[in-house]
Amino acid sequence: MRIKKSEEVVLIDRTAIQVRFSEVDSMRIVWHGEYVRYFEDGRESFGRHFGISYMDVFNSGYTIPMVELNCQYKSPLKVDDRAIVETRFINSDAAKIIFEYSVFRESDNMLAATGRSMQVFLNKDFELELTSPDFFIEWKKQWNIIG
Amino acid sequence: MRIKKSEEVVLIDRTAIQVRFSEVDSMRIVWHGEYVRYFEDGRESFGRHFGISYMDVFNSGYTIPMVELNCQYKSPLKVDDRAIVETRFINSDAAKIIFEYSVFRESDNMLAATGRSMQVFLNKDFELELTSPDFFIEWKKQWNIIG
Amino acid sequence: MRIKKSEEVVLIDRTAIQVRFSEVDSMRIVWHGEYVRYFEDGRESFGRHFGISYMDVFNSGYTIPMVELNCQYKSPLKVDDRAIVETRFINSDAAKIIFEYSVFRESDNMLAATGRSMQVFLNKDFELELTSPDFFIEWKKQWNIIG
Amino acid sequence: MRIKKSEEVVLIDRTAIQVRFSEVDSMRIVWHGEYVRYFEDGRESFGRHFGISYMDVFNSGYTIPMVELNCQYKSPLKVDDRAIVETRFINSDAAKIIFEYSVFRESDNMLAATGRSMQVFLNKDFELELTSPDFFIEWKKQWNIIG
Repeated sequence: MRIKKSEEVVLIDRTAIQVRFSEVDSMRIVWHGEYVRYFEDGRESFGRHFGISYMDVFNSGYTIPMVELNCQYKSPLKVDDRAIVETRFINSDAAKIIFEYSVFRESDNMLAATGRSMQVFLNKDFELELTSPDFFIEWKKQWNIIG
Repeated sequence: MRIKKSEEVVLIDRTAIQVRFSEVDSMRIVWHGEYVRYFEDGRESFGRHFGISYMDVFNSGYTIPMVELNCQYKSPLKVDDRAIVETRFINSDAAKIIFEYSVFRESDNMLAATGRSMQVFLNKDFELELTSPDFFIEWKKQWNIIG
Repeated sequence: MRIKKSEEVVLIDRTAIQVRFSEVDSMRIVWHGEYVRYFEDGRESFGRHFGISYMDVFNSGYTIPMVELNCQYKSPLKVDDRAIVETRFINSDAAKIIFEYSVFRESDNMLAATGRSMQVFLNKDFELELTSPDFFIEWKKQWNIIG
Repeated sequence: MRIKKSEEVVLIDRTAIQVRFSEVDSMRIVWHGEYVRYFEDGRESFGRHFGISYMDVFNSGYTIPMVELNCQYKSPLKVDDRAIVETRFINSDAAKIIFEYSVFRESDNMLAATGRSMQVFLNKDFELELTSPDFFIEWKKQWNIIG
């Protein structure tokens, strides 16, 4: 999906996940830490969909460690629920990769959680890149993302 | 440890953890999601230390689901590192439990990550408590925390 | 799928999984402990498919804790691999639930791992059931499984 | 600890672990897959204690992937339990690293689980070593292990 929202182009991926028994805690709800994996599921699905997976980045000579992550928990998912992870690419002038996430219960679109992550670029010498690497600029152009 | 910081009483716990092989990702650094477990280690150590563990809360008739969590990644931990999780109780007028966390590498005090979590109180009918439960007010009094 | 193999009826489920970045260790292969989750994915897919999910069992008044699990690792899965988990119900006279598992890489059917699990029945008082509960006997009959 | 048992020298390590809230499932017992991490805790503690950690092996030019793992569940650990993981090195003529594990509840020595793992040696070209690498033979000699 590619939408135009005011002046900015946003890319969105949606992927389905199945809650596992092992992800549910003794309160019978999904343990809060599992949402970090759900966001990763979303980010990886986004990467496969739009050609910017971890391996694409790695093969361009970079790694993209996480520098900030946050999550708001709205309503709990439970055992046997299926959920949709919506992952949105947020464009930034800085040398950063920013995603926002929404996790919905599939059956009724209940919003379970929202989140946001920020990653930076390290080169092969594990040095922080202060400007966006060429491959990332090319990737943005390919999807008509400005800046 | 109990310190007085401007007008507010803060309780602090420090606990040591050992990085596991399974917690390290293909970049040879601790996977970012593991810090959610490290914060939980800190919170549980705090709970055992100050008498407000998950079971203490549960036996008082409440559960305390997470409603917000965030994490800033500063410098990576690696395999075989030992780390110190510092967990600070942040007092609030609201019916919430707020903690802040700092994770240091034990060998050189390098700051690996910081974070903050917010939990709320649900009663036995899974209803949100809008005011702090009596057991929590009593717990605060016991540690000379006002409000 | 329902096949007849010598004298015994066997039920088989196959489900696809996507290897996650977080499941890969510093050797760049899926960490061996993740296969326990893959087997669970298989078992849960089997349960949904054949009407014997954890919740089906729980609503019949039982829990089914694991008493034995083993895994043989054949060839490693890597980041971005997709895999098929094949889960086979192994009939037994005893009051036990036995599954065998095979995990294949989807792209080329490479066998990644095999495994076997055994679960028992606990009633609501957490007592071990020495004979198969009625609901389990009924479930077997429904699928033409003898004994 | 170093004991002599019939004709064979056995090395044993014991390490304490704290059950985490996130490790407990909706049956309010430790999820069976967590014992794979507990065994790893034991193996890593053994490695640090006896100078054969993952990094020691890696720096000698080898990796040691798991090829077989099994676990028997005896009695469940619960939230707030502390456990002792006992890890025993089992000597073998083959080019393999074999460990056996026992996990006990610390408070009363209740046996929670037992297990066994087998690892092999891969050289830097990821080829299986059919005979024990020199560093491993040296390590055995250092601890008076024959064969």
